Amino acid sequence: MKYEDIIRLATSKGYYIQSGEIYPNAAAGFWEYGPHGASLKRKLIDLWRKLILKQDNIIEIDGSQILSRDVFDASGHLESFSDPITTCTNCSVNIRADRLIQDKIEKNVSERMLPKEYDLIIDNNKIVCPDCKGKLSSVRQFNMMFKVGIGPSFDEAYLRPETCQNIFIDFPKLFKTMRGKLPMGIAQVGKSFRNEIAPRQSLLRMREFNQAEIEIFFNPNNIDISKKFHKFSSKQIRLAEKDGTVEMTFQESLDKERLPNNFIAYYMGLIQNFYEIIGIDPKKSRFRLLDDDDKAFYAKTAFDYEVQTDLGWIELVACNNRTDYDLQKHASLSGNDFTVVDNDENIVPHIFELSMGIDRSIYCILDHSFTKDEERQVLKLKPNMAPIQVAIFPLVNRDGIDEKSLEITNTLKEEFDVFYDQSGSIGRRYRRMDEIGTPYCLTVDYQTLDDETITIRERDTMDQSRLSISKLENHLSTLFNLKSNF
Amino acid sequence: MKYEDIIRLATSKGYYIQSGEIYPNAAAGFWEYGPHGASLKRKLIDLWRKLILKQDNIIEIDGSQILSRDVFDASGHLESFSDPITTCTNCSVNIRADRLIQDKIEKNVSERMLPKEYDLIIDNNKIVCPDCKGKLSSVRQFNMMFKVGIGPSFDEAYLRPETCQNIFIDFPKLFKTMRGKLPMGIAQVGKSFRNEIAPRQSLLRMREFNQAEIEIFFNPNNIDISKKFHKFSSKQIRLAEKDGTVEMTFQESLDKERLPNNFIAYYMGLIQNFYEIIGIDPKKSRFRLLDDDDKAFYAKTAFDYEVQTDLGWIELVACNNRTDYDLQKHASLSGNDFTVVDNDENIVPHIFELSMGIDRSIYCILDHSFTKDEERQVLKLKPNMAPIQVAIFPLVNRDGIDEKSLEITNTLKEEFDVFYDQSGSIGRRYRRMDEIGTPYCLTVDYQTLDDETITIRERDTMDQSRLSISKLENHLSTLFNLKSNF
Repeated sequence: MKYEDIIRLATSKGYYIQSGEIYPNAAAGFWEYGPHGASLKRKLIDLWRKLILKQDNIIEIDGSQILSRDVFDASGHLESFSDPITTCTNCSVNIRADRLIQDKIEKNVSERMLPKEYDLIIDNNKIVCPDCKGKLSSVRQFNMMFKVGIGPSFDEAYLRPETCQNIFIDFPKLFKTMRGKLPMGIAQVGKSFRNEIAPRQSLLRMREFNQAEIEIFFNPNNIDISKKFHKFSSKQIRLAEKDGTVEMTFQESLDKERLPNNFIAYYMGLIQNFYEIIGIDPKKSRFRLLDDDDKAFYAKTAFDYEVQTDLGWIELVACNNRTDYDLQKHASLSGNDFTVVDNDENIVPHIFELSMGIDRSIYCILDHSFTKDEERQVLKLKPNMAPIQVAIFPLVNRDGIDEKSLEITNTLKEEFDVFYDQSGSIGRRYRRMDEIGTPYCLTVDYQTLDDETITIRERDTMDQSRLSISKLENHLSTLFNLKSNF
Repeated sequence: MKYEDIIRLATSKGYYIQSGEIYPNAAAGFWEYGPHGASLKRKLIDLWRKLILKQDNIIEIDGSQILSRDVFDASGHLESFSDPITTCTNCSVNIRADRLIQDKIEKNVSERMLPKEYDLIIDNNKIVCPDCKGKLSSVRQFNMMFKVGIGPSFDEAYLRPETCQNIFIDFPKLFKTMRGKLPMGIAQVGKSFRNEIAPRQSLLRMREFNQAEIEIFFNPNNIDISKKFHKFSSKQIRLAEKDGTVEMTFQESLDKERLPNNFIAYYMGLIQNFYEIIGIDPKKSRFRLLDDDDKAFYAKTAFDYEVQTDLGWIELVACNNRTDYDLQKHASLSGNDFTVVDNDENIVPHIFELSMGIDRSIYCILDHSFTKDEERQVLKLKPNMAPIQVAIFPLVNRDGIDEKSLEITNTLKEEFDVFYDQSGSIGRRYRRMDEIGTPYCLTVDYQTLDDETITIRERDTMDQSRLSISKLENHLSTLFNLKSNF
């Protein structure tokens, strides 16, 4: 299966490491990025800044992951951020009740029912422990936040389950110190934490994960941004419908009332554009309007940006209209003033959110760039996303690496991520670079010393050609611009 | 006092926000970076990558913050990572015992004594609760790690107190998948967590903080790197001695046995060079050899890189020879093989560590760049560290911002961090930009429409001159290269 091929490649080639894998009882749901994974992640975030934040003048903060109890009292997470759980009265295993029922009765089951409702289904269908067939306990709610105790008196606090709460509680200060004006976008990228009941060993549901969230504060009476929307109006958008995915222009999606307004449509355009540029196949992506059972508890309208992989459709970005829910709650519990003036009105702003899962996005990029045949496995990453952009195979003589190879390396190092590899046959070195996604390899050989030319080899075509060193830097810059679409 | 001036400026101008400040009982020791602080932090980390990691071919990983109990059992943190604490038997306040004693008897007190030893000093000096004069409890050890419970059975795990543990436990995998060779450098930047007993409201001792750590794995029998060291040999290094700070060349510091070898000297050179370029005044920096009382429990030899501020000397980087302590411990507890082959020897590598405190570094940059007179407060940040590199004051006509202003903005946006400010008098706008450290302001006015020139104003000299728009991009690029030293 392609999923297993990708994981095998990625864990053996410096993309992923299972956290704490040297210890047999390390917890599931924690992953580390190896050097190539960490590099890909940085490139993705840098492009998110360039193609979304910078385009839309969105500011970015970098806040605490540990937040006091009050924050999650107000946000509703203490009360509502939980999954239904049942425990086997015989072997004590803990099981997520909705998933168990779903597997057994082979129907979709909401994760938002009352414990009693799950109990009833379990009884009616005579569902028992899948491990030992023991009797299951009554279903209860398990809160998915990680609790921590601050200081010697262990004051109650939590690891944030989403990065956006910092943005909400900092909003009054940010609006003032940054001389804000609605609509105002504030973003944050960082870790969030969810104490999943039983995460499988996969990259798609982690207990500690990376988010890039954008919160647009707006006046719901003043949402016409047709000027900004204009640049997407004739572009194509793909929308999930009951019978499959339909394609139309953004303008048509407004005319046909598939999208509620040009404000939301514009931000969906930014998201789609971003993913196309970083290497998601547009034909395998779509937006899906969520129905009430699927939406988070704080969302009024929600569209998911989904991408098709070998594992099915995966949600990468939740586009939520959170209304004034969060700010009203924080205002009321803290007693702080969250109103701002817009259009001569005093209002508590509404929030439209673009909540991106970074780890999932990276997995989907790997899925869409992975190809394999009998000869080789290749990650066809976009050149500007590749962890190593140029590999140099130096000439090695008696004194070590020859001067010319070092010179080329040092020149290119300024502009590209460069690496040199000197072990094994040339064919094997090309193969290694294909596997981690390096788009260009340069080989220095004895001919180089005679005529100042080197061999350049392209990953995707496997073409090799000789090129004068003096033209190298320009040639590579052109290739990177052509191949990366920006 | 300068410290208070800096904090006042930084919290009112988008550098810092006290975490959860809208809630009265938010815990101390947590800070958030506002947009300008977050930008400065990113620039610092980017330059750390460019000037240290890239120079020395150090690879970088990005791992979990939550790690299982085993990791800290092996590392020694469960047993040794604690501070002595006493509790008032009357008012129940918790106090760090070593600090309290130090304040009362006005002598340096080690933080590594046995509880009994502190008890004895407290008794002998009749030290009571500083708040209510109540009797103090016996001193006990308070472990500074934050504990979290994983999954419904709440398996014991901890938030990492230092980023390097991921690097240690991932080392065997990284050495293999990255085809390692000693010496091999592996780095990580990210959050660490220490449950301080009573952090003051300051930026220098936080419970959640940012580190950038580099671990160099080396063979202790093979540490001559004179070729790499050569580039620093004639540079000056400042070393703390009992009677003050002495200055000599790196070569002299080896000849006089102030530094143990060129291996350690080379990495100290990289650190010093980095801080000079990002804006630390070299005359206010030094390295200090720690004596046994000051060293961390895992360090054999330790030098601190310290910077002088208004608050005294502050440790920014701990340069520790951790020997094979960590790898031996993890090898023994996990049963995994941590040996590698180097020079035909089978060895468990030793580790030299460069552990940088990011938040403290940022505070010191602000301290060294802050100037104030009756007229104005200025952050004289190096141009490439400034959150806003170029401010544009556009011409505003009846239809909004004129076309020419937008054109200039869009051109410069590609290369610089650009912002435009259109409210208040020109003088007030310059003042606002001085306060956040913007090195260059551009003003578009009616003359611009006639002769295609604009005014450029420099932060440090307050000089204003007119310049043709066609020469603007080149002119700014030159200024940035000249002023930033790289």
